[in-house]
Amino acid sequence: MKKGYFITFEGGDGAGKSTQINILKDELTAAGYDVILTREPGGTQISEKIREIILDPANGEMDDMTEAFLYAAARAQIVSELIKPALGEGKVVICDRFVDSSIAYQGFGRGLGDAIGVINTYAVDGCMPDVTILLRLDPEKGSSRIADREHDRIEQASDAFHRKVYEGYLKLEELYPDRIVGIDASGTINEIAEEISIRVKEMMNRG
Amino acid sequence: MKKGYFITFEGGDGAGKSTQINILKDELTAAGYDVILTREPGGTQISEKIREIILDPANGEMDDMTEAFLYAAARAQIVSELIKPALGEGKVVICDRFVDSSIAYQGFGRGLGDAIGVINTYAVDGCMPDVTILLRLDPEKGSSRIADREHDRIEQASDAFHRKVYEGYLKLEELYPDRIVGIDASGTINEIAEEISIRVKEMMNRG
Repeated sequence: MKKGYFITFEGGDGAGKSTQINILKDELTAAGYDVILTREPGGTQISEKIREIILDPANGEMDDMTEAFLYAAARAQIVSELIKPALGEGKVVICDRFVDSSIAYQGFGRGLGDAIGVINTYAVDGCMPDVTILLRLDPEKGSSRIADREHDRIEQASDAFHRKVYEGYLKLEELYPDRIVGIDASGTINEIAEEISIRVKEMMNRG
Repeated sequence: MKKGYFITFEGGDGAGKSTQINILKDELTAAGYDVILTREPGGTQISEKIREIILDPANGEMDDMTEAFLYAAARAQIVSELIKPALGEGKVVICDRFVDSSIAYQGFGRGLGDAIGVINTYAVDGCMPDVTILLRLDPEKGSSRIADREHDRIEQASDAFHRKVYEGYLKLEELYPDRIVGIDASGTINEIAEEISIRVKEMMNRG
């Protein structure tokens, strides 16, 4: 079986993930890779329907564990329907958010702790990223960058919540140094892109 | 804290759960209990939205684990938003399907095994039924009873699947004799109602 390469991007809202993902995609495509871009929660028809329920500000009564299960449901679907088949065909898959988001947002942010790791073992089903780019940006700076647009249910959560998420990400970077590459996201778009490019190439060559 | 009483109904489609639930509800209400009827997946606004995704025949590509997580998500919501508060107010809650459905349909039917028990520990959060009425009916008889109506995604599954679900239920009855009361559902409505009434009263008096 051919084996592709699985890259995920993580970080708070406003850290610049979408911009950097598109730059990396163009670079890897130019280098001859067959690249698939996707996002979580979402990426398949069923996962996008689940995404609507998760993010709809009308669902303010959502229990924290319900939220965690919905993310896991969307993840199980994108893994089995899109990510595993694409990797099996030798493609590079770049995913905007993955399991680390659940650990940071539901585990650390909502305080659900180890439950998130346990249930996501079944969602990920052995399909972990080869490299995860964590865009580190102070959550107050991140939220000021997205101040102008309408906020979904998660973005509407308190500053204290987003602070806990940020600290969760730093903890994950500490725990998984061989997979998670933390990058300072306070620089210019070009500076950040340059650093991501160097680090991803290092990781891909490491094999 | 006042403590209510939690009754769930289980069994294959066409076993007559809805009919019997309504009869029991009327009887307990007449006896002076404050009774709440609900169903799974569903029972709250958010859980009903999740139900739509689960049962929609258009979602034929759904991964088995995604299905299991969606049921768990709907369950976590109904437990925290409806069942626990109602029991805390001393009400009798009768729920059409609960965690045993997940064990029978996803664990046994889909073959996901122990994963279902593990993830549902977090969904149920200690809130297990005081008594579970299992309406036992051969799955072929059950499916002939619902042959005339339009089938949802789960009802559309193969006969072999529904056979495994049935065997899963029998296994659960064996494993949890103190909670699960199996009742032959091939008799008349009145015969079955009479037996349910006797057994539920026994269980409620047992305290």
